[in-house]
Amino acid sequence: MTHMSVSGDSTIGDALLAGIDGSEIYALASQIFPICRSITGEGVRKTLANLGRILTLRLTEIPSGTPVFDWTIPREWTIRQAYIEDDAGRRVVDFRNNPLHVLNYSLPIRARLPLAELKKHIHTIAAQPTLIPYRTSYYAEQWGFCMAHALFEALHETHYNVVIDAALADGHLTYGEFFHRGASDNEVLLSAHICHPGQANDNCSGLALLSHLGARLSRQRTRYSYRIVFAPGTIGALAWLASNETGAARRIKHGLVLSCVGDSGGPTYKKTRRGNCFIDRVMVHVLMHASKTTTVLDFSPFGYDERQYCSPGFDLAVGLFQRSRFGSFPEYHTSADNLDLIGPEHLATSYRILCTAIDIIENDGRFLNLMPKGEPQLGRRGLYASLGGDPKAADTNLAMLWVLNMSDAKHSLLDIAERAGTPFSTIAEAARLLERHGLLQALPEAEPAN
Amino acid sequence: MTHMSVSGDSTIGDALLAGIDGSEIYALASQIFPICRSITGEGVRKTLANLGRILTLRLTEIPSGTPVFDWTIPREWTIRQAYIEDDAGRRVVDFRNNPLHVLNYSLPIRARLPLAELKKHIHTIAAQPTLIPYRTSYYAEQWGFCMAHALFEALHETHYNVVIDAALADGHLTYGEFFHRGASDNEVLLSAHICHPGQANDNCSGLALLSHLGARLSRQRTRYSYRIVFAPGTIGALAWLASNETGAARRIKHGLVLSCVGDSGGPTYKKTRRGNCFIDRVMVHVLMHASKTTTVLDFSPFGYDERQYCSPGFDLAVGLFQRSRFGSFPEYHTSADNLDLIGPEHLATSYRILCTAIDIIENDGRFLNLMPKGEPQLGRRGLYASLGGDPKAADTNLAMLWVLNMSDAKHSLLDIAERAGTPFSTIAEAARLLERHGLLQALPEAEPAN
Amino acid sequence: MTHMSVSGDSTIGDALLAGIDGSEIYALASQIFPICRSITGEGVRKTLANLGRILTLRLTEIPSGTPVFDWTIPREWTIRQAYIEDDAGRRVVDFRNNPLHVLNYSLPIRARLPLAELKKHIHTIAAQPTLIPYRTSYYAEQWGFCMAHALFEALHETHYNVVIDAALADGHLTYGEFFHRGASDNEVLLSAHICHPGQANDNCSGLALLSHLGARLSRQRTRYSYRIVFAPGTIGALAWLASNETGAARRIKHGLVLSCVGDSGGPTYKKTRRGNCFIDRVMVHVLMHASKTTTVLDFSPFGYDERQYCSPGFDLAVGLFQRSRFGSFPEYHTSADNLDLIGPEHLATSYRILCTAIDIIENDGRFLNLMPKGEPQLGRRGLYASLGGDPKAADTNLAMLWVLNMSDAKHSLLDIAERAGTPFSTIAEAARLLERHGLLQALPEAEPAN
Repeated sequence: MTHMSVSGDSTIGDALLAGIDGSEIYALASQIFPICRSITGEGVRKTLANLGRILTLRLTEIPSGTPVFDWTIPREWTIRQAYIEDDAGRRVVDFRNNPLHVLNYSLPIRARLPLAELKKHIHTIAAQPTLIPYRTSYYAEQWGFCMAHALFEALHETHYNVVIDAALADGHLTYGEFFHRGASDNEVLLSAHICHPGQANDNCSGLALLSHLGARLSRQRTRYSYRIVFAPGTIGALAWLASNETGAARRIKHGLVLSCVGDSGGPTYKKTRRGNCFIDRVMVHVLMHASKTTTVLDFSPFGYDERQYCSPGFDLAVGLFQRSRFGSFPEYHTSADNLDLIGPEHLATSYRILCTAIDIIENDGRFLNLMPKGEPQLGRRGLYASLGGDPKAADTNLAMLWVLNMSDAKHSLLDIAERAGTPFSTIAEAARLLERHGLLQALPEAEPAN
Repeated sequence: MTHMSVSGDSTIGDALLAGIDGSEIYALASQIFPICRSITGEGVRKTLANLGRILTLRLTEIPSGTPVFDWTIPREWTIRQAYIEDDAGRRVVDFRNNPLHVLNYSLPIRARLPLAELKKHIHTIAAQPTLIPYRTSYYAEQWGFCMAHALFEALHETHYNVVIDAALADGHLTYGEFFHRGASDNEVLLSAHICHPGQANDNCSGLALLSHLGARLSRQRTRYSYRIVFAPGTIGALAWLASNETGAARRIKHGLVLSCVGDSGGPTYKKTRRGNCFIDRVMVHVLMHASKTTTVLDFSPFGYDERQYCSPGFDLAVGLFQRSRFGSFPEYHTSADNLDLIGPEHLATSYRILCTAIDIIENDGRFLNLMPKGEPQLGRRGLYASLGGDPKAADTNLAMLWVLNMSDAKHSLLDIAERAGTPFSTIAEAARLLERHGLLQALPEAEPAN
Repeated sequence: MTHMSVSGDSTIGDALLAGIDGSEIYALASQIFPICRSITGEGVRKTLANLGRILTLRLTEIPSGTPVFDWTIPREWTIRQAYIEDDAGRRVVDFRNNPLHVLNYSLPIRARLPLAELKKHIHTIAAQPTLIPYRTSYYAEQWGFCMAHALFEALHETHYNVVIDAALADGHLTYGEFFHRGASDNEVLLSAHICHPGQANDNCSGLALLSHLGARLSRQRTRYSYRIVFAPGTIGALAWLASNETGAARRIKHGLVLSCVGDSGGPTYKKTRRGNCFIDRVMVHVLMHASKTTTVLDFSPFGYDERQYCSPGFDLAVGLFQRSRFGSFPEYHTSADNLDLIGPEHLATSYRILCTAIDIIENDGRFLNLMPKGEPQLGRRGLYASLGGDPKAADTNLAMLWVLNMSDAKHSLLDIAERAGTPFSTIAEAARLLERHGLLQALPEAEPAN
């Protein structure tokens, strides 16, 4: 095993973490929050331009009409303005105030309508009367508005001027990619959807977090290559898969979809379709040690783009990492998923979890105990004494015994950490200490499992 | 997979269920309840004659003295009358009032006895003083009566005339079989014991339920052949196994013993000896979705004729389906197991459970997703929209995603239903929908697992 | 399978148990309790001499300086006297009162010291102020005393005369072995550490119990050979392993380390490194049926000499049997681990558990049901009747059915006992009964699994 750690005992995870306190992630999320995004169009490009100031992105533009597996790249949606005005000229709702007010991918309309007719085109949530829902209609042609149910209820009987100045025209679907070349061609995929407008947690948080992570990854030497994909949900992930079917998609050994990583809930990990991939073990290990409120979910074919990565024709080792589980928090897909819902401290914790996972991906490996008959005499080598004043001494001593006992060439450090119920970092540190004292020998890596 | 369903979306289970409300099963159980049965004799033949009016039965008669594995077919027992009369000529108990009063397979007796002597031949249950126990003595030659303990306690000191007008003579053991030929020679065995007198739940309920099921099965085209065996407990099942050792017994792929299917308890499923047979998975799936009070028991070599079917020399895939578990309800093997203990609604529920299980047995199979790369665009095909007004829409949508995701030729519909935590019927319906839209292709069946 | 039982239905376990009530074990523990032991020296030899009056021991002496894997046999430690005296000539602590007062393996010292200087060499437990701790310093050269913290706190400001009349000089490490030859060369290892001074539970209890067990084993004919090792902790076990690396260590099929078997807690079983060895199944089975307060622990590389036996270079099938788990009871490694902590009744229970385990090791085996088609007719053979008056009849009947059902040459008696949830003894008794009636045939043993 080649240790890729920056120097001495500090690890890649440490290096990626240094100086991050979540405020920089929050700032970037805040910056892209107001942009009106959809699965195509100017909003996506503007968002990628903002992220591109943090990390180097390669953009791909796929023309409308291009077939993508069972789908077709849709026409590009452009929205300029949208509002409802009553007969007295008062604006009831205005797209400028909140991009959620217009049904995403709405057809254009310019009409004067009686209330009854207008109501057929308005979406609300009766159970959350003060919130604007986030609704889309990508593939069924219709026009519509979204508003607070209380406002909807208060609409008086009159005629309304309805304006949606939008266009659906041939254009492109855009996605952005960051790539960091590691020692091996094997790739780690990190993917976040870029299509939701006015949703801070879902998914400005994921976009901002991965941007900062990518920026820092590019300054490290790593074992794996890392690919970050920012693509519109479903159609964007399908487009990426179609474009990379015989290339990058085959090199992905471990992967994560990220979304909703900025709120105070969770953490939540949803397993890959196969359910026992290396990334599943890594994330369960990291989350279980990170928090007592961890939820681990089995795979289901409902959620984010793991649906596509885990479709049977690909079956990639891609799980989903979140704070609160999608659909489970009341702000989900409403105007309440705003910048108040997410916080720098939660973004920092999510970032730290990801760095801990990367540390395992980068540093897991098998060792051979060179003194396998009985325990070696650690005291003679100062391996107990050297830790005398250290409050972590007992943990480290036990970790050394675990590493020695299990390092029979069959068990990796993660295997040992799982069996010992000890964080990977403690086990890996013990292994480094024993290796330095000639008691342990790193074994050459096999092709990474996934 | 050939769908054997009657037409369109209605399944064999639906067809078997149509019009059944339990009253017809209860009526048949009531009809056979008063007949005095034993492991041989006129009672068994009379019972089979009654059932034979509902479904076509083939009777087998095996002469007394015929060796059956480690056993021998016993002499046939005929009971004409039995009573105890006190010196004043008052009848203390009379077989005509309840067949339980005479020890089943009692030797004949005609004697005048003092109380003390009589008491040695009387069986009661002290803990249930108003109930007559059901007792047998098939293989140890003795005579005896059964009565309520309260009555027994009240017997006064006098002499008693004791009459059991019974005969043990060479004759036959009788069992009945229903057979329905399906597309395949592979058989499903359904077995119910026919020997208990005066026990409504144990097992008039099972006999009546299977009779109506058989009658309806005979009107269906099925994948499997179905065999229903009505035989005396233990010796009857052994006789059937001995007669079919090289024939039908080898063709049985899945089987169930039924008894006590008319009371309000349970449902209970006791697994096959192997414990992980297809029938085990089917019954656990059906019962878990049918009721929150389901009990699943591991196999034990104590119970009904699954003991014989699951003996190591056969080791058939035969489980036990019940409402209340045998021995666990207070009425078990007493005069309180009468027609008040069972009800049409419980019989109907048990019948429905069996039909649901048959639906899985008939319709399970593997499919291939023909669009395995990413999700196919269901909306374009109206597969979301077409379900708009349907309250089951969300379930069906999710079921379609599960079927698509898991249909990689490795997973059967039952595998998918288990993983999705969704009833088989919902998964199977989704598969039919997807197949009609060209997204799924049925795979040829392998030899059925069991 | 050759039944090694003494005669008829009584088993080796019964024979080993006969007449043992714990008082003889307690008496032996009391006898060796006062001896000052260490990992080398006169104390160990004196202890072995005492045990050697009960069972035949072969002693091995290994010279100081002999390399043992990664270790070296240390110089031998001799302690004659040790005390602290204040300026007024009052003895503060005296080794003669308790061997714990001197740091085990302390260097000699003879000095007059001010309180401040003395305190640097005194070990106490602040949280248990009335107890003397048990401390050692085998491999770091230092001198020291141990005392109650209350006493330590009360020391007044003066000078103290400090005397430790000890010597570290070339000598030997000593261990003792008992060996009982059975029908096979395959060995069962029972191991107890012999180095702790003034600790009744840890481990006079283990030494005394195994001595009495060995004495009785030597009078039995057994299937396995039995080896009992009394060796100093760690270095002694390593020395034994080094001396027997190509011999006895390879013949060990099942093993247990014993310590702390005399207190009222537990019982506790810590599994072997492999975790699913035969000895693991035996001990879990025995303990689960023996007590509702059983604790079963997974292996960890911390504890007693199972650490050495289970090191990856040996990976022997050796578990740890205790009452209270080491380190978990407040008296552990203090002066409160004295003869009050252990009791004859607890020693007897531990002894009984060991005998039950030996019964399984000696008598487990596979049988073949000679009437595998259906159940054989037990009643005809008097196998039900013969048990009529026996309160264990129902258990034995059910046990016979389990044995018959599972004896397909694939399942051993322990497999059956585990599946039936029935004590091994009941299953084994049923098997003997069925074998006597010609229904069961013992199968020749394969090489014992471990």
